[in-house]
Amino acid sequence: MDIKNHAILLLSCPDQKGIVASVSRFIYEHNGNIVHAEQYTDTQKGRFFMRIEWELDDFDLSRSEIPKAFAPLAQRFEMEWALHFADYVPKVAIFVSKTSHCLYELLLRQQAGDLQSDIKLIISNHPDLRPIAEAFGIPFYVFPVTPETKSAVEQKEIELLEKHAIDLIVLARYMQILTPTFVARYPNRIINIHHSFLPAFAGSRPYHQAWERGVKVIGATSHYVTAELDAGPIIEQDVIRVSHRDSVQDLIRKGRDIEKLVLARAVKMHLENRIIVYENRTIVFDT
Amino acid sequence: MDIKNHAILLLSCPDQKGIVASVSRFIYEHNGNIVHAEQYTDTQKGRFFMRIEWELDDFDLSRSEIPKAFAPLAQRFEMEWALHFADYVPKVAIFVSKTSHCLYELLLRQQAGDLQSDIKLIISNHPDLRPIAEAFGIPFYVFPVTPETKSAVEQKEIELLEKHAIDLIVLARYMQILTPTFVARYPNRIINIHHSFLPAFAGSRPYHQAWERGVKVIGATSHYVTAELDAGPIIEQDVIRVSHRDSVQDLIRKGRDIEKLVLARAVKMHLENRIIVYENRTIVFDT
Amino acid sequence: MDIKNHAILLLSCPDQKGIVASVSRFIYEHNGNIVHAEQYTDTQKGRFFMRIEWELDDFDLSRSEIPKAFAPLAQRFEMEWALHFADYVPKVAIFVSKTSHCLYELLLRQQAGDLQSDIKLIISNHPDLRPIAEAFGIPFYVFPVTPETKSAVEQKEIELLEKHAIDLIVLARYMQILTPTFVARYPNRIINIHHSFLPAFAGSRPYHQAWERGVKVIGATSHYVTAELDAGPIIEQDVIRVSHRDSVQDLIRKGRDIEKLVLARAVKMHLENRIIVYENRTIVFDT
Amino acid sequence: MDIKNHAILLLSCPDQKGIVASVSRFIYEHNGNIVHAEQYTDTQKGRFFMRIEWELDDFDLSRSEIPKAFAPLAQRFEMEWALHFADYVPKVAIFVSKTSHCLYELLLRQQAGDLQSDIKLIISNHPDLRPIAEAFGIPFYVFPVTPETKSAVEQKEIELLEKHAIDLIVLARYMQILTPTFVARYPNRIINIHHSFLPAFAGSRPYHQAWERGVKVIGATSHYVTAELDAGPIIEQDVIRVSHRDSVQDLIRKGRDIEKLVLARAVKMHLENRIIVYENRTIVFDT
Repeated sequence: MDIKNHAILLLSCPDQKGIVASVSRFIYEHNGNIVHAEQYTDTQKGRFFMRIEWELDDFDLSRSEIPKAFAPLAQRFEMEWALHFADYVPKVAIFVSKTSHCLYELLLRQQAGDLQSDIKLIISNHPDLRPIAEAFGIPFYVFPVTPETKSAVEQKEIELLEKHAIDLIVLARYMQILTPTFVARYPNRIINIHHSFLPAFAGSRPYHQAWERGVKVIGATSHYVTAELDAGPIIEQDVIRVSHRDSVQDLIRKGRDIEKLVLARAVKMHLENRIIVYENRTIVFDT
Repeated sequence: MDIKNHAILLLSCPDQKGIVASVSRFIYEHNGNIVHAEQYTDTQKGRFFMRIEWELDDFDLSRSEIPKAFAPLAQRFEMEWALHFADYVPKVAIFVSKTSHCLYELLLRQQAGDLQSDIKLIISNHPDLRPIAEAFGIPFYVFPVTPETKSAVEQKEIELLEKHAIDLIVLARYMQILTPTFVARYPNRIINIHHSFLPAFAGSRPYHQAWERGVKVIGATSHYVTAELDAGPIIEQDVIRVSHRDSVQDLIRKGRDIEKLVLARAVKMHLENRIIVYENRTIVFDT
Repeated sequence: MDIKNHAILLLSCPDQKGIVASVSRFIYEHNGNIVHAEQYTDTQKGRFFMRIEWELDDFDLSRSEIPKAFAPLAQRFEMEWALHFADYVPKVAIFVSKTSHCLYELLLRQQAGDLQSDIKLIISNHPDLRPIAEAFGIPFYVFPVTPETKSAVEQKEIELLEKHAIDLIVLARYMQILTPTFVARYPNRIINIHHSFLPAFAGSRPYHQAWERGVKVIGATSHYVTAELDAGPIIEQDVIRVSHRDSVQDLIRKGRDIEKLVLARAVKMHLENRIIVYENRTIVFDT
Repeated sequence: MDIKNHAILLLSCPDQKGIVASVSRFIYEHNGNIVHAEQYTDTQKGRFFMRIEWELDDFDLSRSEIPKAFAPLAQRFEMEWALHFADYVPKVAIFVSKTSHCLYELLLRQQAGDLQSDIKLIISNHPDLRPIAEAFGIPFYVFPVTPETKSAVEQKEIELLEKHAIDLIVLARYMQILTPTFVARYPNRIINIHHSFLPAFAGSRPYHQAWERGVKVIGATSHYVTAELDAGPIIEQDVIRVSHRDSVQDLIRKGRDIEKLVLARAVKMHLENRIIVYENRTIVFDT
């Protein structure tokens, strides 16, 4: 992974003239070189969205000076904005239950340099996947969950996450529903993989539902977790063809291949600061 | 289109030993040459399904003698079965409203020899597409529909369909819901195209629903029409990727490309006698 | 089709600081509102590419004044650039031989408002498709071609094309090779569809070649025509799965579905001024 | 993995009447229950191909008696045929060099029960991937190769393979060309993954070739190894879209996802005895 001395600005604001000119001028006047820029205007809602990335090598503002220098411009255009640095390595926690394919996919991609992340810990409600965590040298914590203990357990989990200053939580086929309290703590920072093309087959046992309905295509959906189950902003989806010949077990087996790809792509987009969430939809700057 | 002197047998029965041996022996003993055979066993339900096609050139039974000769074997295995002949050209009626892409796709494929069918007539609740029908030399009937007149209108339509001995009705973006009475008249003989990957976004304005939900993939579903709206056996589905950049109008435009392909594939499978419906699922013998 | 009072600038230049700032400032200072902008830097070659689109409603330069006003900036950055207007309807000539699916696709999309173009004429070396041209009210010219007459025929074709001020030539399964003289007349303005995923199976009878090789995927490629056969810059490609069951005839039939889609997408990208050609590769700004 | 007491017969012969009837009767008369059957007729070459699978639980021939009992029928129809048993676990050797994604994919699928195989050993010309082999408890052998030592090294490898009675060799991104002597030893039993959609970009550095040509789709091909480089019978292919934005490094990264899937699918088809090779093409019975 080629780690770069770049700044990344994600912003949105009411659409109007002069936004691009002002932002690019700000960067140019401080001697930055824009290496990527992507914009999108939601004409229906009259809102402008942008991701802009520039080299900091000759930039005449230090990293800590940028926000203050940019603030007047942001205020003038009523921007919501966030500043990131491309060399920051986000701290990640992965939650799992018993199935390993999504966990492996994340670990192998991280190892291959595809996912710029520091996987600090793996949390599970079952001990089954501990050997994998150990093979990759990542601390593994087991927190069994029952309806009665869920709130207390989540408190302990949050303590652990805060202790490690976790930036992103990935639910890699974690078979527990998080409480609204937990979810509210990490807005747009918990990514889940659901094994159907949402909104079809929300809830439990989606492959069984899909088989019953006799669909010819199955899917997987990665989304940010919100208080409402399987209803958060969708980041990525993909599908695979199936036929009458496929049993529920075949759907489960075939579905694994897209679950892991869809989750890995969504996590990658998040880690590279390519996503803006607006009114339960994602703008994914993927070029 | 290469029209063949073949017989096609579609059958299903409780799974047991000797079915293939008995059926293939029946064909062999009457001097038929099997050119295609495909079978499927639903192990969960213990049911066997088969499509078998053979050459009639040297077959020593006439077409009309086959059913009687085959009946004892069918009875022994408790088969549900249907006999078709590959050179029969099914009579088709197409129902449309105002959008033309699915209609054109069917007409052009029929013209190109891809769909072995005799398109006898086009029925619409609007006059808009008459010029297309005329360009292809197909009679076009306009039946305006209101909630009050629907039953009476359907009666007239049925008379027309019966007069032409229609085998298959294709709803090529026909924006009316047929009554249960009409549907019951043509069981598994009405094919609809719905512009979403069912069961997601059933009902009206699926592209608007899809945009609201922020999906990254849109789809189309072709299914047999049953009394319950958008809930009949699915024949074929496909999808296309979309992004946050796509407006509802873009979804509508992109969706057209898969709607017409999915519908054309489903109609082709039906016309070639490749589909068995069993408990609201389709077995599609597509090899 | 929603025709817009927009200007579109396509440019490329050596990569350096200040390009985006300067271009966006130029637009802003003349009171233009940027509605789309997409950029790409080929870091290996150190070259910057951009497509930027802005509203002209309040722009304080007239259309004819823009080039002169922009020239100093273009010179400073050593830009190659082209200015287009979104409401210009390009004049198109379609070349065909005997197969109709690509021609129909273009005509139907144009009719549906998907392709902003004025299809002025259809040229063919065979009379077969005349009825289609007539049904759509487009002049149809037959120019039979033999090796001996090719140069003379092309001269007549060029006269016709010039008389109609044709902007774009689309070879919609035109089964003749144009001479280098003809090609040189329309650099990056002749789009061809080849029925294979180039560079595999260049030249004649690609489906036969594909069948012989036993591939499991067939494709189609749309590219600008250059003097070297099937070697011009690729605009768009797509593929479809096949199996051992597919005969050459099946490949031809299945291939039609992607040929027409791939060609239509490539033509659309060109008509919307989304393509820059650089060193035999295309930059396609498709967002 | 659900291991079944089934027999599988793969056969091909000149097409003629009575093949299916005779084979299915043979099974039925010995009290076998057919659970799968798939056939294909190459009408151009007049050759019939079949895969038929039946339950042995009540079969009245022992496994060793089947070949002799079947021989007269095979002789009568001039069959080439092979008998397999579904509970046999093929012994596999994997050859690798330095990249791990294909190796991991095979190991993880084997572990998940997707690939019924006994991975006996991993051979490499580099020591780099030893830790992975160790994590999965599989013996790892390093055989450095130079042009001068290649023949001698291959002799040692063959000894090792024979000692372990290896049934299938998988080249999981093994960056050495095997000698014709080695290849001849394992006809249709060496599966390679090539990182392009063959026949495009055969030979070395296919992603660099693809980038240079400016393709919009890249692919991967799994094939049996023959004496001619990258020209053996293709088992499986797949592709992924790319754009001008993708550098060679991006193509390499994106290509990994399809390489591993395509290889895993091909290996699975082979392990399940679903492939017949005929005149450098594969018939893959995948239903």
